[in-house]
Amino acid sequence: LAEILIGIDLGATNVRVGALTPSGEMLYVDETELDAEGSSQTGLELIARMVTLVMAQTAGARLLGLGIGSTGPTDPMRGVILDPGTLPGWRNVPIAAFLSKRFEAPACLENDADAAALGEYWMGVGQGMSRLYAVTVGTGIGTGFVVDGEVYRGENGFHPEGGHQIVDPSGPECYCGGRGCWESWASGSAIAQAAQRVLELWLEHDRQEASGAPVIGQYTPQSILLQMAGGDPARVEAKFVTKAARQGDPIAAAVIRAASERFATGIFNIIMLFHPDMIVLSGGVMRSSDLFWRDVERVRAAAQVSVPAQRIQIKPAQLGYYAGVYGAAYAAWRRFHGSGRPVSSANASTDGR
Amino acid sequence: LAEILIGIDLGATNVRVGALTPSGEMLYVDETELDAEGSSQTGLELIARMVTLVMAQTAGARLLGLGIGSTGPTDPMRGVILDPGTLPGWRNVPIAAFLSKRFEAPACLENDADAAALGEYWMGVGQGMSRLYAVTVGTGIGTGFVVDGEVYRGENGFHPEGGHQIVDPSGPECYCGGRGCWESWASGSAIAQAAQRVLELWLEHDRQEASGAPVIGQYTPQSILLQMAGGDPARVEAKFVTKAARQGDPIAAAVIRAASERFATGIFNIIMLFHPDMIVLSGGVMRSSDLFWRDVERVRAAAQVSVPAQRIQIKPAQLGYYAGVYGAAYAAWRRFHGSGRPVSSANASTDGR
Repeated sequence: LAEILIGIDLGATNVRVGALTPSGEMLYVDETELDAEGSSQTGLELIARMVTLVMAQTAGARLLGLGIGSTGPTDPMRGVILDPGTLPGWRNVPIAAFLSKRFEAPACLENDADAAALGEYWMGVGQGMSRLYAVTVGTGIGTGFVVDGEVYRGENGFHPEGGHQIVDPSGPECYCGGRGCWESWASGSAIAQAAQRVLELWLEHDRQEASGAPVIGQYTPQSILLQMAGGDPARVEAKFVTKAARQGDPIAAAVIRAASERFATGIFNIIMLFHPDMIVLSGGVMRSSDLFWRDVERVRAAAQVSVPAQRIQIKPAQLGYYAGVYGAAYAAWRRFHGSGRPVSSANASTDGR
Repeated sequence: LAEILIGIDLGATNVRVGALTPSGEMLYVDETELDAEGSSQTGLELIARMVTLVMAQTAGARLLGLGIGSTGPTDPMRGVILDPGTLPGWRNVPIAAFLSKRFEAPACLENDADAAALGEYWMGVGQGMSRLYAVTVGTGIGTGFVVDGEVYRGENGFHPEGGHQIVDPSGPECYCGGRGCWESWASGSAIAQAAQRVLELWLEHDRQEASGAPVIGQYTPQSILLQMAGGDPARVEAKFVTKAARQGDPIAAAVIRAASERFATGIFNIIMLFHPDMIVLSGGVMRSSDLFWRDVERVRAAAQVSVPAQRIQIKPAQLGYYAGVYGAAYAAWRRFHGSGRPVSSANASTDGR
């Protein structure tokens, strides 16, 4: 056992740290809950302890480098976590420099969606794909575009936010500045909120009837979805909606249908704008990707009228929760040891910034 | 005068052929009308005569290569024009091999939108831009994405059709297979057709009034736009609509407003999905880009809420009609003589295919 890479996936609620060989074998992986409200100092020390623990399991191996995939926004060029809304205590945190100094090895940082995309390219479903477009549908929608193993970066290294392309401007306003963007229609939050709004209206109607108001129309006497949330619309989660939709709950089914249709519009746009070799779908909502598949296939067939869309593979991700760990390790390998052109020459190394 | 490149821009109605130095100086350029209904044999001979003529003006210079930018779809990897709807007589035409053999120099083919983008990168407004996204708004909407001087290509070398991203599904069905795509809202044809529909309704109303039907509401007694079209809605062109809008014609103004809003949505999406250094706007409709600018600036300011959108330059193209000639010449230079990685190693050369 000669050489290892450390891959770190830093999310809003969990940290995962893995030790991998340069050929992509995961030797050991650890996971810990993170206090999202805590300070970055506490968080960095937690991560450092996890790295030490994981490295102890691979005693004697030489550390080739550390990669971090982090909830954004990040500055991958400088290796700095900027100001993630999901980690309010982390602001301008030079995590790559911190880990590089602590472990005396080069370290680099990627946005989590990019890390997940790299993971699927390296060891997942996207192996050998020259142009791999990854879409992660969880609380939000994150996108990562990997071209010949390199993360596509925008101006000044900025990570594009493909999850905020507008797919139907009749949708809700979003914090992104747009109205009816992909995330506002099809993310887990969007699905939960849409269901919450309908259930609240429904309960209001019930209350009016109970108070003696005249009955207008016929309503379903019970909602499986509302039962799942213990009778409180505010407690509805996206996973309840997908589950209730499968059981035939009409509100849940209508919400999923609306989300699925707009999700597919976003896929249509990725086909038209990027024409990648493969689109890979991951994230919590995509664990129910079968509910979205009919619309995805519909838009691909529609696009085939004018472009060779059927040649584009559209697949669920393979690496699940660990895509980010794989991808972060691969980013470090590729940047510091790979034969390809480095992803960036300006990232943190051992200079202790 | 030692070495020249030939750039050819093959459109549905015109052919332009230019002789350029490797440093981008246009020495001579010729333009001829093309019979869009004619055969490819006739067309190829016309182009060959134009090349001979242009080369005669630069007598003694060594021909480094020929580049063609052609109305699509094309196969840039094999240098073959596939089956352009706008040139029905051109089907599977190996134009690169034809010109290469005839002029004993390497030749390559690009999609016209890609050629225009390369031209602006080489000698126009996009010089030095690492990621240049070009949008041509004419009869349709074409897009080209140039990364460090190379055309971005999709799977199997396919040219992405960014003009068919869906921006508002409440729009018309398009031949692309989608509904409410960019082109169906904001292209010259879309603008003309939207105005035609409104004018037809308006004339129908006039006829009903004339036949003694009761008058419903107040209507503008005259339309500048209809006058421009000689009273026949079917003869309305996009340029009439922009002109009439400037003169205060309410129908024209409403049509431009709707188109401008959806054009800007497409720009918002390019910002979110690509985050390029620059977006360059060209084509007939963009000669009136001032009419669209307010909405473009509005969406850029909106996007700035979540991403550094104001850093992205959005500019009108500089090379006008000749962008394609410049870009085609640059494609040949870069592919056969440039220092960069060749755009494709599989394109036609002097092997006489």
